Order: sequence, then structure tokens, then C-alpha cells
Amino acid sequence: MLIEPGKLLKTINSPEDLKKFDNKQLHQVRDELRQFIIDNVSVYGGHFGASLGVVELTTALHYVFDTPKDQLIWDVGHQAYGHKILTGRREQFHTNRLYGGLSGFPKRKESEYDTFGVGHSSTSISAALGMAVANNQFKDDRHHIAVIGDGAMTGGMAFEGMNHAGDLQDSNLLIILNDNNMSIDPNVGALNDYLTNITTSKTYNKVKDEVWDLLGKISKFGPNAQELASKIENSTKAFFMRHSNLFESFNLRYFGPVDGHDLDHLVTVLKDLKDIKGPKLLHVMTTKGKGYAPAEKDQTKWHAPGTFDKVTGEIRKKIITDPQPPKFQDVFGHTLVELAKENEKIMGITPAMPSGCSLNIMMREIPDRAFDVGIAEQHAVTFSAGLATQGAVPFCNIYSTFMQRAYDQVIHDVCIQNLHVIFCLDRAGFAGADGPTHHGAYDLAFMRCIPNITVMAPMDEQELRNMMYTAQLKKNAMPFSIRYPRGQGSMPNWRTPMEEIQIGQGRTVKEGNDIAILSVGPVGNYALAAATQLKKDADIAVYDMRFVKPLDEAMLHEVFSKFDKVITVEDGCLMGGFGSAVYEFMVDHQYHAKIKRLGIPDAIVEHGTQQELHKECGFDAEGIAATVCEMLELVPTSQNQLI
Amino acid sequence: MLIEPGKLLKTINSPEDLKKFDNKQLHQVRDELRQFIIDNVSVYGGHFGASLGVVELTTALHYVFDTPKDQLIWDVGHQAYGHKILTGRREQFHTNRLYGGLSGFPKRKESEYDTFGVGHSSTSISAALGMAVANNQFKDDRHHIAVIGDGAMTGGMAFEGMNHAGDLQDSNLLIILNDNNMSIDPNVGALNDYLTNITTSKTYNKVKDEVWDLLGKISKFGPNAQELASKIENSTKAFFMRHSNLFESFNLRYFGPVDGHDLDHLVTVLKDLKDIKGPKLLHVMTTKGKGYAPAEKDQTKWHAPGTFDKVTGEIRKKIITDPQPPKFQDVFGHTLVELAKENEKIMGITPAMPSGCSLNIMMREIPDRAFDVGIAEQHAVTFSAGLATQGAVPFCNIYSTFMQRAYDQVIHDVCIQNLHVIFCLDRAGFAGADGPTHHGAYDLAFMRCIPNITVMAPMDEQELRNMMYTAQLKKNAMPFSIRYPRGQGSMPNWRTPMEEIQIGQGRTVKEGNDIAILSVGPVGNYALAAATQLKKDADIAVYDMRFVKPLDEAMLHEVFSKFDKVITVEDGCLMGGFGSAVYEFMVDHQYHAKIKRLGIPDAIVEHGTQQELHKECGFDAEGIAATVCEMLELVPTSQNQLI
Repeated sequence: MLIEPGKLLKTINSPEDLKKFDNKQLHQVRDELRQFIIDNVSVYGGHFGASLGVVELTTALHYVFDTPKDQLIWDVGHQAYGHKILTGRREQFHTNRLYGGLSGFPKRKESEYDTFGVGHSSTSISAALGMAVANNQFKDDRHHIAVIGDGAMTGGMAFEGMNHAGDLQDSNLLIILNDNNMSIDPNVGALNDYLTNITTSKTYNKVKDEVWDLLGKISKFGPNAQELASKIENSTKAFFMRHSNLFESFNLRYFGPVDGHDLDHLVTVLKDLKDIKGPKLLHVMTTKGKGYAPAEKDQTKWHAPGTFDKVTGEIRKKIITDPQPPKFQDVFGHTLVELAKENEKIMGITPAMPSGCSLNIMMREIPDRAFDVGIAEQHAVTFSAGLATQGAVPFCNIYSTFMQRAYDQVIHDVCIQNLHVIFCLDRAGFAGADGPTHHGAYDLAFMRCIPNITVMAPMDEQELRNMMYTAQLKKNAMPFSIRYPRGQGSMPNWRTPMEEIQIGQGRTVKEGNDIAILSVGPVGNYALAAATQLKKDADIAVYDMRFVKPLDEAMLHEVFSKFDKVITVEDGCLMGGFGSAVYEFMVDHQYHAKIKRLGIPDAIVEHGTQQELHKECGFDAEGIAATVCEMLELVPTSQNQLI
Repeated sequence: MLIEPGKLLKTINSPEDLKKFDNKQLHQVRDELRQFIIDNVSVYGGHFGASLGVVELTTALHYVFDTPKDQLIWDVGHQAYGHKILTGRREQFHTNRLYGGLSGFPKRKESEYDTFGVGHSSTSISAALGMAVANNQFKDDRHHIAVIGDGAMTGGMAFEGMNHAGDLQDSNLLIILNDNNMSIDPNVGALNDYLTNITTSKTYNKVKDEVWDLLGKISKFGPNAQELASKIENSTKAFFMRHSNLFESFNLRYFGPVDGHDLDHLVTVLKDLKDIKGPKLLHVMTTKGKGYAPAEKDQTKWHAPGTFDKVTGEIRKKIITDPQPPKFQDVFGHTLVELAKENEKIMGITPAMPSGCSLNIMMREIPDRAFDVGIAEQHAVTFSAGLATQGAVPFCNIYSTFMQRAYDQVIHDVCIQNLHVIFCLDRAGFAGADGPTHHGAYDLAFMRCIPNITVMAPMDEQELRNMMYTAQLKKNAMPFSIRYPRGQGSMPNWRTPMEEIQIGQGRTVKEGNDIAILSVGPVGNYALAAATQLKKDADIAVYDMRFVKPLDEAMLHEVFSKFDKVITVEDGCLMGGFGSAVYEFMVDHQYHAKIKRLGIPDAIVEHGTQQELHKECGFDAEGIAATVCEMLELVPTSQNQLI
């Protein structure tokens, strides 16, 4: 079902077309754009609230600026649906986030209007500043506009960018702070308080004006007052004028706050700002989900609601009859509470993903010991290290892809010191529709090269519980990385009693004689499915190694003594990953099996469902079975052909 | 030669001893401590200016606080010499930074007074906050003090830490901003301007007092003025009171600035602050190198001057007769200028290491195109990515160990987008005396798992030049990582004409028939030395692979076809590194050579000279020769015994 755009929107194939409209028509475009997003997302799913909140800003930016010559950078990028629709991708928009379709984020390969690929937060100021400096150097007169949310502003690199920008007063940089008081979850941290304070208090940025007024009024009190005024002028005023505002502390000219839903005013302000040189910040107030009442009301739920009935606002749920396996994140969330009730040293930490990783369960039940630290992965890790030095046992939950942000802290603050911090890496492996910026492809490789850390991946819910239980035991006071994927596991009855796992001990899932499949993580279920489906043709052994580090050397000796054909499977990069670790063992111990690694190839894999991507990379059940057939030189028969 | 401490200092074996002294004696301790540092560093070398600058602060902190119960965290940690001397390590202090001796940085294993291991910058606030939160939870009444420089304050994670700290008003956290206007090089960025401004302008933090005074004075002007005062009180004042200062924007109570060399005042202020609850910041002004005139005058030179004549202030240089090979960093610095003069698209970027990486050469010669962005590795990388989108060719120089800080940016902003950014990783491999926090052990492993990037390591100066030349060619517009070690190369006449290297093409250094050694980087010289020394016993081939990614597959096919014994050598971690990449090739192509990897083992290697550490890990010339003998089952004779 193709969504019909409104009659003006239908005519816009690039921002050029937008520029022809008069003020009234622009309002109509705004309304049609909002409706088109609602119509599409309700049917096809995707991010929702963020794009609705910036419909006016998007319209105004493309109306005022000369894109794509002027460089527009959307921080994070899940608010860029309106931008995509106005920049020539309206007719493809129904393919958004689908395999082979448009990316859910700005992407350079997709459009010249997407000046900088995004997905992770807080990069836009640095990128825009780089662009501004280059074009300054090359005498290329362009505007550079970074649109960044107040959540993304808490990420340290946004400050690093502002600190440098303030030093480069001839760079043509406009930072637009899109202040909606939200990340995916409500924002936390002092900066959030600060922004709330300057935008909601009565002084509400009138402070500067009031000082000026004050100086005027004082003069009415006669000559002494004049003298006094002069004194203020010399000492206090200059200081306050320059530093009354956090952003001005960074030598950025500060403008606003302005109402981000007042289209006319936005257009006026942006036009004015075009003429103002140097680095500057415009503070825009918006409401996430603006224009769709249910989304305005529950902004976390409507961040990415899935499909919904746009009339009733009812979010569609799959009709489920059987008991379903839980999401791994919920197994984490509930298990952590269970453990924390027994072990009072346990703390929970998330950088701004309480609902995404289900730490919100502990935040509700044991609020004193669960912390959302904001979009601040680096801080999250070192904060956890600090906790651990005092005997706490922190479970620090960070998506695999975001853990890349805190890699140094993992090495320098946790592993070198061998501290008892337990990293839980959610969304490991393919992230699915979010695509390459969000795939957790590298963690097995980048974690296993660090000394002292134990690297694990559970095959199912029960194993996740057992790993969490094992990691928090006092006798195992060392760093852990436990990685598991987005989405459901495989055990409807997952609340099993927890058992200790011996560190570095794998598990035989299925005995066999012809070939061995070694897996880590839930791809072990694919391996088992392949073994089952091929059972008439081959006697396949399946080993759930559980540990990428330390490897179960006893098990590997057994495997390589018995088998001359081995397959490794992982939902992670092949370069330096689990399979590579198995190679290291095999070669170092002078075994000579014929061995093949399955996993994520050395290439950028685009978006799609996890299943589509597993298939593309050849490590779903079918792909594994095909590799078995190839290695055993089996001709697939009807018995071993996979459904 | 053991340095004799002063007569009071001699009696101090822990801060307990310090607490017995009266005010006058405390001054004497301060002087003796400073002298002891001068006496030691002049003879043994080490970091200098930073520790001299905090002698008063160190003395005052241990005098006022109850260490080690109270947790004192030194950011970066090269300013902690006084701390080490006062906390029981005076008599070992002459072993500072030597193999087997004291670490040059605080280190938990070394002393209970070293509450948090450091080396990298900007971690102290996060760590201290974690400690404060844990002890709050465990009802353990301790103070938590983070001492952080103004340079380290520009690192994004310091802001992440402050943002969270401001949210936790019941945490007992004192941040001491040690403001000396310097990192190793002079500080840059808007924050630096800001701090200079609030500490040098006449308003100089008296601003708040003046507003208060002003309110008082206005009241003298009669009833109307009262009304006015009341109005200010209600609107302006509350705002200014709360937000007149950057740090107060983060809900931190701000105190200072105070003179960091006024010991008595420091003691008083710190005592007062002990009684003030919640997160707070004390701004202390110090001079790097304080008390030693030459060091105060040229602070960059005296950051870590080596040994010197303490009377004349003359820094000792090795007596050199022959022309010496240059440092790799200088080859980088000069070559970049040569290239930039030919290619106007080239830009140079360093996060706060202009003298350490020799980008200062370009900053002098082509200042418009060379940028010190402050201690901000994340920003440095994404800023470079932004430059590259506009056609610039950025050389982004970051120490291998600090590149860990920008790992996500390398993946997310550069490699996924396949941008033409050239990373030059200085201090790759063992950093030497700086120890485990600074070893560049992991980059080959963590870089090669990322798609699109080419990973290289030059064996000598000429190869570094050729790699830099090759990387900037327009036809090679993709990400590069070029890693090279600290210190000298091997070519006194290094300024050779530059030549293009084919991407992924290794080089045969020495033909041979018995065994092949594959190396990357300057360890190839060890391999060659081993081959030369064993030449009567074995005919050893040496291949300088140059590329860890893409591997020279043609060369590897040749090697594995010809040799059944192979050694790989790298100055990097064995887990997932270069040797592991060679294993992947060998196994995937079903070769069965007996192969052994030499490199950094999966353990934390402590500090020492690079040579000592290479020897310890068995990949110096002697170690390589021993491995050759072992693999060829040679009995070392006098001919092949190495000197």
C-alpha cells in the first residue's frame, strides 16, 4: 500500500520546489509532511516522535538554506524522516528501514542531502565544524548547520566539539539545539536541569534584557545611580553579557530559546542567522511527537512504536496464542533484579537506555542502586569502575555498538585494573532495521584482545541467567563481557533456577561424528537446526562454546582430536573474532582440521531484519547446512534440503 | 646514587606522620618535598613540571584529608610524584619509571593510597563519583577528591562526569580544578579562554559578591530602589546566582579561584570544604614547574625533560658523534609538511600532542591547515571526518593508546562512510617507561576488524614516508591507519624521495630457505638481525609485510608454498593481531605450516624501556633467534649465540 502524499507535498522533489511556495503554502506543506509521516509510520513502522517534533524545523531549514550546497547534519538522525521526504525520497519512503530500502538514518551513499552519516549520538558538531573549517580554507562559501538534541548534547564529544568551535571564530557554524527534554527516555543529568531552568523560569532568557533594562532604570535614580550604573557596566555587565549562559562560556553566540513549532518565526530567525558570522547556537524548543496526541503524551512509547492505528492511536501487537520466548533484554532486566535482591553489592548502570535494555525494571524496584547516567558511555564505564573499587558489583549495560564509545575506558579503567565490572552488551550481532551504524559486529574481536576480561555469549535465556549469576560471584571478581542480541530468545519458560558455569567451560549440545560445529551465542540454535535437518545425511556434533575467552581448551582438544572437519559460527565479524580465536588454538596446538568460519564478513552490511542479514551472510540454519554439505561433499537430497 | 631527603621529609612514611606537624613545619615539608622532586628528576628523569606545580596542593590534601580512607584520585597522574613520596614510597622513588620499579602513575597494585589507576586523561570525575555513590550506598562516610587539570577538563568524559555529578546532590564529591593553563603543550579551546577570563579579568569571581553588594547599595537610593532591588532579587539574581558560572550550570557548587601556591590558604579552604555536602568544585590556580625557574619559563620543554643539571638548568643530551636516526614522530612531522606543500588539501590534526607527535612543525609552517583540538580524541576523529567530506585530506595523528578513546568515531564516522582520513598512530607498541596505560598494544587487533580501513606499519623511516605519500594520493581515497613506535628509527639518512607503495604489497627483506619470518613494523629489524646472526646455521627469509590489512595474499601464497616453518613478529597483542591475521589466511587456504606468533602476550605488561619489554616478551632479536633455533631444532653454537 503506497501512501498518498498531500497535493503540495506531491510536487516537492527537492528543496528547490519548496522554495517556490508562499507563506501560506509553506504552512500547508508543513501539515502535509506531518500527515505523510504519520500515515507512513502507522503502516510501516519506524522512528516516530522525533521526526514529528522537527517538522517545522525541517521545513524551515530547507526553505531558508541552500541545501545541499549548505551542509545540514542531523545528529543521531532518527528525526530526519521529514528531511528525507523533502529531499527526493518521498516515493521510496515506504521502503524505509526495509531490506534493500531506504536507511532509517541519513546516509551519504543515499543522497547528496545527507551530508554526514549518523546513527550514534553527539557527532554533529564535530562533523559540521570540520566541514566549516575545510570550506573556509577552500574559500567555499557555505553554511554548516548541526541539529542536535538536548540528549545528544550530554555526550562528551558534543562538548569537545563546542570547545573547539568556540576557538574558531571564523567558522560558519550554526548549532541548532533541538530541546525536547527527551532522549528515547526522559533526559537525565544536570544539563537537562539547566536547560529546563533557562527555558521555564520566569527569567527565560529575558535575563540579559532585564540587565539592560535595569541599567536604564537605575539611571532614573539620579547621579549616584549613574555612577553605580557605570560601575556595573564596567565590571558585572561585561562578564554577565559574555558568560550568562553555558554556551556563551564556550564562545558561542547564543540565540533563543524560540518555539520550534512556530514555522514563521523559525523562518525569520534562520534568515537572520544566515547573516551572522562565526560559531553560534540557536536554542529551539520542540515537543517530541508534536501533532499526534498519543505520541505527545507518552514520548518513550512512541519513540519507535511499530505500526499502529492512526485513528485510534492503538499500537498493533502481533496476535499471540502460545507463550512466547521473552526478549533477551527482559531476561537481563528481571534477572538483574533477582540477583540484586540477593546480593546487595549489585548496582545497575545504563547510558540513556533504561527502556531499551530493561534496566528500568531495576530502576523501579531498587531505585537507589540503578542509574541512568545519560548519553555518556565513557562515563558509564568509568563510573562503574569507580563503583567497583569500593566493593560494589556493577552491571553496566551498553549496546554492543555503543560500547565502541567506551573502548578506552574498558581497557584503561576496568581491565588494566582487573576490576569486577560486568558489561552486558545488548543488541550484539546484527541490530536489524537500524543498519550498519547500529550493528554490534565487532565486540567479540575488540573485547577478546584485552587482557583480564572474560568474554561470553549465551545461547539462550537460561544461559544468560547463568552467566549473569556466575559473573557476580565474589570468587569471580574480574571484568566480564556478556553479549546477547536484540529480540527474542528461544525459551518460553525461561525463569529457571540459576546455576554457576565454570569459567571457560563450553557445552556439548549434540554429539556427532562427521563434523563439529562450534558456536557462540544464539546462532547455536541455527547450528542445532541445521544438524537436525541434515540428520539422515550426516552425524553433526554441535558445541555451544559459551566462552570466546578463555576458550574451553579441553573441549577444543577433544574436538580437534576427534574431527577433521570443523565449522565455527558467530554473529560477529570474522576478522579477529571467535572463529579466529579457534584458529589460534588450532594452529598453536598443531591440529590440521579443515575448518571454516561463518560470521559477519569484512564489509559494511546494510539494514534488514536480523533473519535476512543472517541469511545474506550465510550463517542462518540454511547457510550452515549448506556449508556442512559443502565440507562433507554431500549432494543435498530432499531429506537434507532445508525449508 | 640515592637522593637524600630533607630532615622532616625523611620522617614521613605515611600521611599520618605529616599530620603531626605544625604550620611552620608544614612549610618546611613543602620545601623539602619540592627539592626532593627536583633532586630526583634531575638525576633519574621523569615527569617534572606537573608535580612541582602541585606540591602545595599535595601537601595540603594529605594534611587535611584522612587518606587512604578518603579517596584521592589524580587525573592523568603524572603530577602525583609528591603524593607517592608522602605515601610511603620515598625510598623507592629513585626506581620511578624503571623496569621493575615504581610506576610513573598512580596504580592500585602499588599502594592503597593510589585509589584509581590513571595515565589517560579526564577519568577522575567519573571514577570519584562512582566511589562516592558506592560509599553513600554502603553508608561509608568518606571524602572523594578528584584532582583534574584544566587540560583534562576539555576531554568530553569530564563533562559527562560533571553532568551526572550535578544530578547526584547527595554524593560527597570534591572536584579540584588544577588550572595551570597547560596540558603538555599550552591548552587550546574555548574552555581555556573561559577559565583565563574568569581568573584574570577584574571581575575575577568577585562578580557574585558585587551583585550582592549592588543590591545592598541600591537600597540606599530609597523606596523605589528597594522595589527595584526586590525585582532583581526575584528575577535576575536567582538566575545569576545559580548560573553565573559554567560549573554551576552543572549544579556543582563552585569555590575559588584560590592561589594553589598559598599553602596556608589551601589548608583552610580544604578544611572548610570538608564540611560542605554534595558535589562541589574548587578552582585552584597553579604554575606548572613552580619553584624551578627554568621549568616555569618553558613549561612544554620541562613537562618531562629527561635528566638535567639542577644548578644550571641545562638538560643533558646524549653525546652523539655519528649522525643519528631521527625519531619516527619527526619523520611524520617533516614529511607531512613536505606533502602538504604539494597537496593543498592536506590538513593536520592532533588532540593536544603537537610537540609529542611533531605536528607543531606544520603548525609553525602552515598554521591555517594544522589544528590542535585539545584533549579531545573523539572530536579529533569526527572533525577529521567532517574535513574529509569536503575534499580535504586530513592526517589525524593520535597515539595508539589514545586512539582507544575514539574507536567508535573511527568505525562510525570514518570507516562506515569510507572517508579519506589518514590516521597516524604514534607510540604504537610498547610505550616504554609510561607503562601499561600507555602501551599501544591493541591497535592492530582493533583496527583490522573494521571494514574499509587499510592498516599499515612501516619498518623504517623511508617506509613511513612512502606510506604517508601513498595514503594521501587521490586514488587511495579511503581510511588508513599507519602505526609506528615511540623513539628513533634506523636510518640516519632518512630524507629519501617518496615512492608509492601498492596497497597490500609486502616486501622481501631477505631471501632464505629454511624458515620464514613475517613481520610488520620496526620489529622487522630484529628479525633481520636474528637472520644475520644465525646465518651460518640457518637460511632465514625475512618478509616485511607492511600491511596487516589487506594482507599481501600473493606473498603469503608464496611463503606457505615454500616454507613449512613460519614465524610472525609484531609489536602488538597476539590475540587477534597480525599473526592471527596470518593464521586466518593460512587456515582458510588450507596450508599446514608449523607457525609461531611472537608479540605481546595476553597480559598486562608493566613499564620498562622498550628494549627490556621486547626482550621480556621474546620478540627482540635474541628472542626471535631463540624461536628460530627451537623451531629448526638447532642447538645454539657460538656462531649463533647472540650478543
